[in-house]
Amino acid sequence: MAEQAGLHFIGVLHGDIASREDAPKNYDESDRVGTLEIYPEYQEGLDGIEAGQTIVVLFWLHKSTRDVLKVYPRGDQSRGLRGVFATRSPVRPNPIAISELQVLAIDGNRLEVSGLDILDGTPIVDIKKQISK
Amino acid sequence: MAEQAGLHFIGVLHGDIASREDAPKNYDESDRVGTLEIYPEYQEGLDGIEAGQTIVVLFWLHKSTRDVLKVYPRGDQSRGLRGVFATRSPVRPNPIAISELQVLAIDGNRLEVSGLDILDGTPIVDIKKQISK
Repeated sequence: MAEQAGLHFIGVLHGDIASREDAPKNYDESDRVGTLEIYPEYQEGLDGIEAGQTIVVLFWLHKSTRDVLKVYPRGDQSRGLRGVFATRSPVRPNPIAISELQVLAIDGNRLEVSGLDILDGTPIVDIKKQISK
Repeated sequence: MAEQAGLHFIGVLHGDIASREDAPKNYDESDRVGTLEIYPEYQEGLDGIEAGQTIVVLFWLHKSTRDVLKVYPRGDQSRGLRGVFATRSPVRPNPIAISELQVLAIDGNRLEVSGLDILDGTPIVDIKKQISK
């Protein structure tokens, strides 16, 4: 199918998770730390983010398959196949992951964060303020 | 800048919000209802979504400007400009919105939902399970 909108990556994640086997299943089960490097042309957009804050980060899962619509949730075959839209599987037609991460420190265009469940080298698509619960 | 990844729209929103002036500021301030029409080739991915559930929906804000990095949060000029990544503004380099919506009913490839703050006709990019709080 034709691509209908194009993404511009705003940065890249530097972390210590090298393979999916080593990745926590979700951000709420992780205390892994890493750095969001935002490209200089987007740095101005970070203004107002503070250490101690929780941010919502969208990643482009560049290693994910896009042509699968049914998966075993969390890889557990005993629970049967489910539609990808009923899961948080990284496999989906548009492989965008949403993580809620804690900002540990900010240094110019680099944000040190914790809570990562994402592979080193993954492109960053967006950062948003968390909606207060 | 070159586009670095391409999105395939999985469906389109049908609702009654025709302009940004008429849109609630956020999904947590909205009880507006509408229908997520998922294109038939992606319908299988809905398997497992149930009425009564809250889902996370990613929209592509096709009418948003992409070249602005500072905004007045919620349009309030008294608070000064902020970087878009410190806000939920629809204006951002990759205009993807995240909404948490309640599923009222499912009929094949159509999901009736409430909580909308998104314009009628907006393309849908992804649906995910909500992470339990």
